[in-house]
Amino acid sequence: MIPRYSRPDMVAVWTPETRFRIWFEIEAHALDAMAELGIVPKEAAKAVWERGAFEVDRIDAIEAVTKHDVIAFLTNVAEHVGDEARFLHQGMTSSDVLDTCLAVQLVRAADLLIADVDALLAVLKRRAIEHKLTPTIGRSHGIHAEPVTFGLKMAEAYAEFARGRARLVAARAEVATCAISGAVGTFANVDPRVEAHVATKLGLVPEPVSTQVIPRDRHAMFFATLGVIASSIERLAVEIRHLQRTEVLEAEEYFSPGQKGSSAMPHKRNPVLTENLTGLARMVRGYVTPALENVALWHERDISHSSVERYIGPDATITLDFALARLTGVIDKLLVYPERMQKNLDRMGGLVHSQRVLLALTQAGVSREAAYALVQRNAMKVWESDGALSLLELLKADPEVTLSDAELERSFDLGYHLKHVDTIFERVFGTA
Amino acid sequence: MIPRYSRPDMVAVWTPETRFRIWFEIEAHALDAMAELGIVPKEAAKAVWERGAFEVDRIDAIEAVTKHDVIAFLTNVAEHVGDEARFLHQGMTSSDVLDTCLAVQLVRAADLLIADVDALLAVLKRRAIEHKLTPTIGRSHGIHAEPVTFGLKMAEAYAEFARGRARLVAARAEVATCAISGAVGTFANVDPRVEAHVATKLGLVPEPVSTQVIPRDRHAMFFATLGVIASSIERLAVEIRHLQRTEVLEAEEYFSPGQKGSSAMPHKRNPVLTENLTGLARMVRGYVTPALENVALWHERDISHSSVERYIGPDATITLDFALARLTGVIDKLLVYPERMQKNLDRMGGLVHSQRVLLALTQAGVSREAAYALVQRNAMKVWESDGALSLLELLKADPEVTLSDAELERSFDLGYHLKHVDTIFERVFGTA
Amino acid sequence: MIPRYSRPDMVAVWTPETRFRIWFEIEAHALDAMAELGIVPKEAAKAVWERGAFEVDRIDAIEAVTKHDVIAFLTNVAEHVGDEARFLHQGMTSSDVLDTCLAVQLVRAADLLIADVDALLAVLKRRAIEHKLTPTIGRSHGIHAEPVTFGLKMAEAYAEFARGRARLVAARAEVATCAISGAVGTFANVDPRVEAHVATKLGLVPEPVSTQVIPRDRHAMFFATLGVIASSIERLAVEIRHLQRTEVLEAEEYFSPGQKGSSAMPHKRNPVLTENLTGLARMVRGYVTPALENVALWHERDISHSSVERYIGPDATITLDFALARLTGVIDKLLVYPERMQKNLDRMGGLVHSQRVLLALTQAGVSREAAYALVQRNAMKVWESDGALSLLELLKADPEVTLSDAELERSFDLGYHLKHVDTIFERVFGTA
Amino acid sequence: MIPRYSRPDMVAVWTPETRFRIWFEIEAHALDAMAELGIVPKEAAKAVWERGAFEVDRIDAIEAVTKHDVIAFLTNVAEHVGDEARFLHQGMTSSDVLDTCLAVQLVRAADLLIADVDALLAVLKRRAIEHKLTPTIGRSHGIHAEPVTFGLKMAEAYAEFARGRARLVAARAEVATCAISGAVGTFANVDPRVEAHVATKLGLVPEPVSTQVIPRDRHAMFFATLGVIASSIERLAVEIRHLQRTEVLEAEEYFSPGQKGSSAMPHKRNPVLTENLTGLARMVRGYVTPALENVALWHERDISHSSVERYIGPDATITLDFALARLTGVIDKLLVYPERMQKNLDRMGGLVHSQRVLLALTQAGVSREAAYALVQRNAMKVWESDGALSLLELLKADPEVTLSDAELERSFDLGYHLKHVDTIFERVFGTA
Repeated sequence: MIPRYSRPDMVAVWTPETRFRIWFEIEAHALDAMAELGIVPKEAAKAVWERGAFEVDRIDAIEAVTKHDVIAFLTNVAEHVGDEARFLHQGMTSSDVLDTCLAVQLVRAADLLIADVDALLAVLKRRAIEHKLTPTIGRSHGIHAEPVTFGLKMAEAYAEFARGRARLVAARAEVATCAISGAVGTFANVDPRVEAHVATKLGLVPEPVSTQVIPRDRHAMFFATLGVIASSIERLAVEIRHLQRTEVLEAEEYFSPGQKGSSAMPHKRNPVLTENLTGLARMVRGYVTPALENVALWHERDISHSSVERYIGPDATITLDFALARLTGVIDKLLVYPERMQKNLDRMGGLVHSQRVLLALTQAGVSREAAYALVQRNAMKVWESDGALSLLELLKADPEVTLSDAELERSFDLGYHLKHVDTIFERVFGTA
Repeated sequence: MIPRYSRPDMVAVWTPETRFRIWFEIEAHALDAMAELGIVPKEAAKAVWERGAFEVDRIDAIEAVTKHDVIAFLTNVAEHVGDEARFLHQGMTSSDVLDTCLAVQLVRAADLLIADVDALLAVLKRRAIEHKLTPTIGRSHGIHAEPVTFGLKMAEAYAEFARGRARLVAARAEVATCAISGAVGTFANVDPRVEAHVATKLGLVPEPVSTQVIPRDRHAMFFATLGVIASSIERLAVEIRHLQRTEVLEAEEYFSPGQKGSSAMPHKRNPVLTENLTGLARMVRGYVTPALENVALWHERDISHSSVERYIGPDATITLDFALARLTGVIDKLLVYPERMQKNLDRMGGLVHSQRVLLALTQAGVSREAAYALVQRNAMKVWESDGALSLLELLKADPEVTLSDAELERSFDLGYHLKHVDTIFERVFGTA
Repeated sequence: MIPRYSRPDMVAVWTPETRFRIWFEIEAHALDAMAELGIVPKEAAKAVWERGAFEVDRIDAIEAVTKHDVIAFLTNVAEHVGDEARFLHQGMTSSDVLDTCLAVQLVRAADLLIADVDALLAVLKRRAIEHKLTPTIGRSHGIHAEPVTFGLKMAEAYAEFARGRARLVAARAEVATCAISGAVGTFANVDPRVEAHVATKLGLVPEPVSTQVIPRDRHAMFFATLGVIASSIERLAVEIRHLQRTEVLEAEEYFSPGQKGSSAMPHKRNPVLTENLTGLARMVRGYVTPALENVALWHERDISHSSVERYIGPDATITLDFALARLTGVIDKLLVYPERMQKNLDRMGGLVHSQRVLLALTQAGVSREAAYALVQRNAMKVWESDGALSLLELLKADPEVTLSDAELERSFDLGYHLKHVDTIFERVFGTA
Repeated sequence: MIPRYSRPDMVAVWTPETRFRIWFEIEAHALDAMAELGIVPKEAAKAVWERGAFEVDRIDAIEAVTKHDVIAFLTNVAEHVGDEARFLHQGMTSSDVLDTCLAVQLVRAADLLIADVDALLAVLKRRAIEHKLTPTIGRSHGIHAEPVTFGLKMAEAYAEFARGRARLVAARAEVATCAISGAVGTFANVDPRVEAHVATKLGLVPEPVSTQVIPRDRHAMFFATLGVIASSIERLAVEIRHLQRTEVLEAEEYFSPGQKGSSAMPHKRNPVLTENLTGLARMVRGYVTPALENVALWHERDISHSSVERYIGPDATITLDFALARLTGVIDKLLVYPERMQKNLDRMGGLVHSQRVLLALTQAGVSREAAYALVQRNAMKVWESDGALSLLELLKADPEVTLSDAELERSFDLGYHLKHVDTIFERVFGTA
């Protein structure tokens, strides 16, 4: 956890206080169920809810001796509850507490991440509508291709993060299970109805078959999903970094008063937020492989997954939460320069219309190969002039180009490229 | 693609012939739609379906000159179709063909993988039912814990691969989209109805917003899912490798007549299939990161994803297909040794019942801490005797243990641990 | 950074105090060099050394406004030094400070890691010598193969970590460079002699060609090396986990008085330290890919590497430092059970000698294939008896086995397998 | 192995013919040593060299029955050699052959890769010298910073690949070991002098302590090194992709006659080779993690590494070989446009000189903070004019800027930034 890349709500999910509070609730709910089943006295459950308490420091001190965190926790709770505490944790294992707690934490983290994506989606939609018809050059391979709109870029990102949202909802469901099944998961010493009660109380469903631990393919799928979303963040961040390049400068991260771009070069305004997001995406992706390696635990369980999860549980969720919020802020305040977009669009001497001429020629009966050669021949001249020559004028002057001037001019209409923006917006937003 | 780790159906998905055949169908279906829309002559579409053909070698030869595979393909098809071929590909880009083709291939691959998982699930279910009540020691940390059944191990794997199946279905839906949207995805030169027609014909849905390419977060999610399933394969493979260890030997890979375990040591029977699966899982996992790195293409597209997909498209799906089939074979023919399981279960002098004694003591009024100390004191003696001493006898002889002999004996009943096997089977299989 | 997996010396390398102190030294040494070159007044350098100071909180407060950490630092230092502070940082960029500081930190980290490996090597050597001739079964594929000694296992690990040490020394040299080259690395505003002076003072060498930043292939190599060493840790950890399995129990992690293996099962003694090391190895490996992705910065630099390094700089080195120390402790106190090793060695009815019989038969003129079949035939009987039958007796009784009883008995001598232990020890330790 | 990304020399390293030929040499050299030691008849060794032969198809057919490749190979060789073949492989295990063979293959692969890097270095050096003083804008964060030269960019890449070369030499040494140590590596049945002889003959050194297999930390280090070099390839590829962007166009991949950039847009000239290299780098990096996971084999060995190596042995080396050669070709023929570089350099109205003004102001007694504010104030105006305004003129007109016009003009001299190019070239190439 890096403080500068952390936000308080997600950090709170992972504090010792939160963890021990969830442990307490698991144990106390389980005790309620046992009391209801007549296994333990009802007064014991009542006593635990009434007098149950813990102190993080005290638990740490006890763990230093026992080298076992759940035993340390129970010992500390017993110091508050008194004798009735002996009914706590009966027939349960540490993993019942730890894995169910992790499920609660990951579900809370998922909820925050889903809310983050919702906020991002709202901003993307607003900017998409705002710039629905702002023309800009579409680029393949970094090379000018044909016109698009800036709104389409935002719509694409919207659709991608909408997919991300659906994946997060699925990932949340993957990990939202509860296991109170005792040693090696056989319910030998704990009634399955205890698990059902705790699950209901915590908003989880019972794990169908646990083996002391909840199977780690669930967590692997969860963290893999975060890695995919981080990669989508990187994609949008890279887009903005490109747009802010000096020679392109079609959009720019907001630059706050007092901010300094460089200690040495006062003229600099750098896309540092999206560069930062690029790096953060690498980290969230980096946590995927350890999560995958955690799946193959030995027999009914080993504890090798635990240390991995102490890192990636907080680090992946806190980093992704921060990154989503940062990206939302970047998009929200992004400075967009339509004039510069138009200027860039025009700078290649009309080359962006080359395909339409090609099609017009083939429709006029020229073979595809011949038409391609004709257009390429003229396009290369424009290309080599760096946009100083005009493709339209060259084509008009080319005796082998059999289209009339009027036909050629029709091929150089920007609106032609934007006629299906409505279609795409309707697909993405359900309405044009 | 490693021949020894490949099966023909999945290999067939990725041959040049298959790829070019899908390209042909995409182009021909698109032409049908254009003809229906009156954009091109209906005879052209008819001619393409009737005379359309290609030769892989000829395409390669043309590509050596043009350095562009789709143009090479179209040129070759035109050699067969003749003049009408000039209507092919109008307003389309190579990516329309390539990405839609990849979608078809990944969908076919997903279907094969789902069928593979189904076959595995069937075998796992059969072995689970067969050994539903075959007692075996459950192990946490590789150390004897408490009894489980071999059927429970199979049921756990069944539940895990059932999750894997659901994930594959979701991953299939992720990539089952079609893009015929032209350069930079604006439909400037191709009607969206063409895309709709091709999608329907190929069993895909239109990509809501493509940018010349289908966005690569979809493929990232697909390959990440394969990585998770590979990790589940590794888990079951590692379980079998452990069970086959000389000292454990509770199960064994089938050893065929004529097979030699070692060129030097004639006595060897090694779990080489599951060791192989462990390695194959590493490879499928290794393809996840390149797939994640493919997401952040530049602007509307760059082509860096293409080389990655030429590797991981075939390699990840062929390897996983092979691994799933191999695992199915291993489980199907697995030699299971219930007597050895019972022998191992008994070898620790009854230590596996220690928890139940602990609970009996606390229920009889002993504090949890005192009970733990009492049981641990006797358990350690048994432990140090390597199972030569009997925990039951030691407890009977311990004056501080206040339970009667009959009460103690009840704590050493194996059936006690298996009483909820039905519950778990009902959860996993919907029926006990 | 996870406190429970952290040791103070390595943590100290990465504190804000340490970082700012190194920044201060870089700036002050650079100023000395500039003063020596007559670029700035000597009193300025003197003033900075004398009055230079900083406060972490104050720097944070200033950075909250400037959003630039080096400017914040310089502002704070200037508050202490006064007017002469304006000569600081002249012609330098933030990266000169940040990258040189990171070099110093990674070099210190490498020194601690090298010392960790030295401590581990010493312990491994001691245990190797102690158990040089303690026979134990060698296992391939988890199956009994032929005898080795426990000392050989330790010697193998020694050789592996000796390689790790050499790799760390190389990795240290990779990152031990200093860049004080100014914006885009041209030395336009800073004399190369300043860089040379700072490098000397900090124990670094000048980076031959920096581009504002030190090239990140160096850091990638550094973190990749840590990933390899982590994998070696995992190998030894997995070995111990195997040896501690209930059925094997040839060695065991030290179990301290008061420690509890399980909250539910008082009899448990689990290899939790080596399981933990297995998980920690996954994390250190997980940091390799982000480090590799950091190499391809844009043009002369972008800052995407920075966030990655804020995580993996501390996390990879602190985790590996802790893991090495933990592994050293585990090996140091490892409980080794030679009697159990002998018992396991004997349990397969002499199968471990099968190869020697095979060789004796071929030397006596039997074809390799026939000899293999003869030995395998008898070996399989012993195998199926789970070691109750004796391979030696079966071979004596097999009429087709043409070796005399004396010849056969010579093939079952344990010493035969250990005759080259000296050879190997001499290779590894330079002395038998 | 993807044919289009493969070159014949490296492919030849990995063919079955090559592998079996190396196996043959290992076995035959070992037999020579055994004959020399008097263990086997000298005629046997002679017979093997004289009559020894094999057929790939025949070996495959035998392996289909024995499921063991080395036994299949030996059986096939025996079919040629006759009775004397029974002396082959005595006391050896399959791993002696397989691992030593892999060492030979990886050494050959390393030699090819080193030669590839040498070819790349030669080209980089030539282009560096050619453009040593070709001015171009240096960019940090994609934003114009200060001038550099194109030769410096090439020199930086040279230095990086020179480091890569040194790393390859070290990686080659890591894997250049020979193991002929028999089952579990004890030399029980094979004399260490046999290993020494084979090692010498094959240009390897004896593995100090093998455990039937050569330890896999060596291979992990090897493949990790390839991943670092792939990342350096990506860096240079990304640089060129950036330089070829339409708005930048300072350099361009060579575009061969007949090549088509786009099937739809005849005007396109895309940096497809460097985009391809970006993807190939992802693959080579992707192979690092499986190699790291291969280290922790169980006990003396398991065979999980084998399938991984069947993939990554060829795939990583063939891909990297191809990528290095492709990059060499790209740099060799790269179209460099110095006029465009100058044009881009000039387009920001002199902003690139802002730092020098800042320094001049501070040297004239203005505080650093005040100087920064003064320059930034004017720089922002130029920035917002997109280079239409001139920083020099604005500064001259700013009454608070106390420098004379002559002093200001001196701050706008391009040569100032290039004065240390010689210094850097001398560092990199040993001569300016």
